[in-house]
Amino acid sequence: MIKTIEYVDGMVRMIDQTRLPAEKVFVDCKTIEEVGQAIKTMVIRGAPAIGVAAAMGVSLGADAITAANFDEFYDAMKRQCDRLGKSRPTAVNLAWAIDRMKQVARDSKNFSIAAVKVRLKQEALAILTEDVSINKSMGQHGQTLVKNGNVILTHCNAGALATAGFGTALGVIRASVNAGKNVRVLANETRPFLQGARLTAWELKEDGIPVKLITDNMCGFFMKNQQVDMVIVGADRIAKNGDVANKIGTYMVAVLAKENRIPFYVAAPVSTLDFALASGDEIPIEERSAEEVVNINGKRIAPEGIEVAHPAFDITPNKLVTAIITENGIARAPYTASLQTMVKKK
Amino acid sequence: MIKTIEYVDGMVRMIDQTRLPAEKVFVDCKTIEEVGQAIKTMVIRGAPAIGVAAAMGVSLGADAITAANFDEFYDAMKRQCDRLGKSRPTAVNLAWAIDRMKQVARDSKNFSIAAVKVRLKQEALAILTEDVSINKSMGQHGQTLVKNGNVILTHCNAGALATAGFGTALGVIRASVNAGKNVRVLANETRPFLQGARLTAWELKEDGIPVKLITDNMCGFFMKNQQVDMVIVGADRIAKNGDVANKIGTYMVAVLAKENRIPFYVAAPVSTLDFALASGDEIPIEERSAEEVVNINGKRIAPEGIEVAHPAFDITPNKLVTAIITENGIARAPYTASLQTMVKKK
Repeated sequence: MIKTIEYVDGMVRMIDQTRLPAEKVFVDCKTIEEVGQAIKTMVIRGAPAIGVAAAMGVSLGADAITAANFDEFYDAMKRQCDRLGKSRPTAVNLAWAIDRMKQVARDSKNFSIAAVKVRLKQEALAILTEDVSINKSMGQHGQTLVKNGNVILTHCNAGALATAGFGTALGVIRASVNAGKNVRVLANETRPFLQGARLTAWELKEDGIPVKLITDNMCGFFMKNQQVDMVIVGADRIAKNGDVANKIGTYMVAVLAKENRIPFYVAAPVSTLDFALASGDEIPIEERSAEEVVNINGKRIAPEGIEVAHPAFDITPNKLVTAIITENGIARAPYTASLQTMVKKK
Repeated sequence: MIKTIEYVDGMVRMIDQTRLPAEKVFVDCKTIEEVGQAIKTMVIRGAPAIGVAAAMGVSLGADAITAANFDEFYDAMKRQCDRLGKSRPTAVNLAWAIDRMKQVARDSKNFSIAAVKVRLKQEALAILTEDVSINKSMGQHGQTLVKNGNVILTHCNAGALATAGFGTALGVIRASVNAGKNVRVLANETRPFLQGARLTAWELKEDGIPVKLITDNMCGFFMKNQQVDMVIVGADRIAKNGDVANKIGTYMVAVLAKENRIPFYVAAPVSTLDFALASGDEIPIEERSAEEVVNINGKRIAPEGIEVAHPAFDITPNKLVTAIITENGIARAPYTASLQTMVKKK
């Protein structure tokens, strides 16, 4: 399995997810600005992976700071973090990782600047390593919901490529396979960026897990024909009440699952919870470029001169969510109470 | 406006809908076999347009028959029709048009073969001409449901390009505009063939009707955010009970409309009704090539060696259909009774 993100020779190396599966090309970031650019252009994507990249980017940025004292250092670091924090608005893991790195810096104020930099790099590495073990715990909890022979529908890519490894939604699927269950995956292609077709199908094929690719608008057909046992997706941000922001189209999948009485599960680490927001209405929805909708493989698919929308995420209301699978257990409605207990266990 | 299909110099000329909007190229069919191929490869598509093309194809086929007497002629014609009838399975208009042409032949058995051929060509031209006036009647009935300022979501292309002209779902929109109402259209791109992005957006832009293009998985987002007033789609076949076969994804749109209390209208001529089928369960669903899903603009979007599904249509149960707009009026539930009255009016 190719690593989503790692340190190589003092640089942050990422596999370029805009070019998979046709090409396996890596992007090496030497600066925090390059990491921010990679997040913005979706060289790396997926809420947990964005968090890991941000932490590693903050460490790169810190290394480049020349400062006479801690306050000077921290001011410069904060300015870098503010810019990085704006690279993508919806996934809260970006802010979560940056906040954690800033906290480590503040906790290290009595150390030398050189030592602070070492501690920041250690923290970034800890976030990277923790992410994989968090996903494995999530997988252990989640696989208890999966039966032998189940067909699992997923949307977008909440896999190894969306994390430091193993995946969230696909982590539950991997854990089910590791527990000896035969499962098959129905993967929505996930327009416009085609993360399902390009990344999920590729990851699962590499792991030998049976996957069937469909266009997004086909998922209702298969649910209605009783060919789907459950849905598992990831999340970019979950509000206090359990409303879930995830890749555009997730709401569509959730409504179709409800109509066909199919359980709809969200797999996400506790770092995706944002208790500062009372409901999904407060989650910012990123509007991306129209070009990403109308150009596929460098060719335009629509006439010039028409309006095009590109909301990159949508909100699935808590009432459509059967359960939220975290590394600390499985939360069910009412989520305002159950999600609190997930965090307390941390 | 470019003509979808017409007679030119004894040939059937169609605009190649697989190449719009990038290129305006025409395909000239000299034989019934070429018409069948054009239907199969979706050079021409849309249930009413397929019906018109079939009728014109049958006339071309008849012209080529050398026979000593009517029985010989009709046998040959029937064999040609049987082959043509297999070009696409879901849209009933294909069988409807072929049956109508066969009936004209049988009604003309006492004429000379040359005269039968003339009558068949006249019938094909009548079907072509009628289709436009049927759509205009449908538009008149349908526009009564549309209010000034409405935003109308549509899926696939049920426009001029799906018919001999004016369109079914887009005919209702055109009639609303002609009645002085400001309407805006939200067009699902309609994967995998992108009829929404390529054809609907192009048609509406040519007519100066405001259109915003979205990916299919975005339509729920806009419905939930109260930015859609109604849905209007076409149909490929409607069973006796009002179950509707239409382009894959239509069921998804209907479920999302119900969840968000948005009216879901189907616009279709009486020729789309198939009272031989008790319910949508009996409608054959065409499975098309996986290549049409994984190749876009000649480039593969998914890894090799994975399974891919491509059901080209789905069934929307009658309970999700607010009304069916025909050229003879608007049918509402219970459809088994109301659809009968639509046919009787014919």
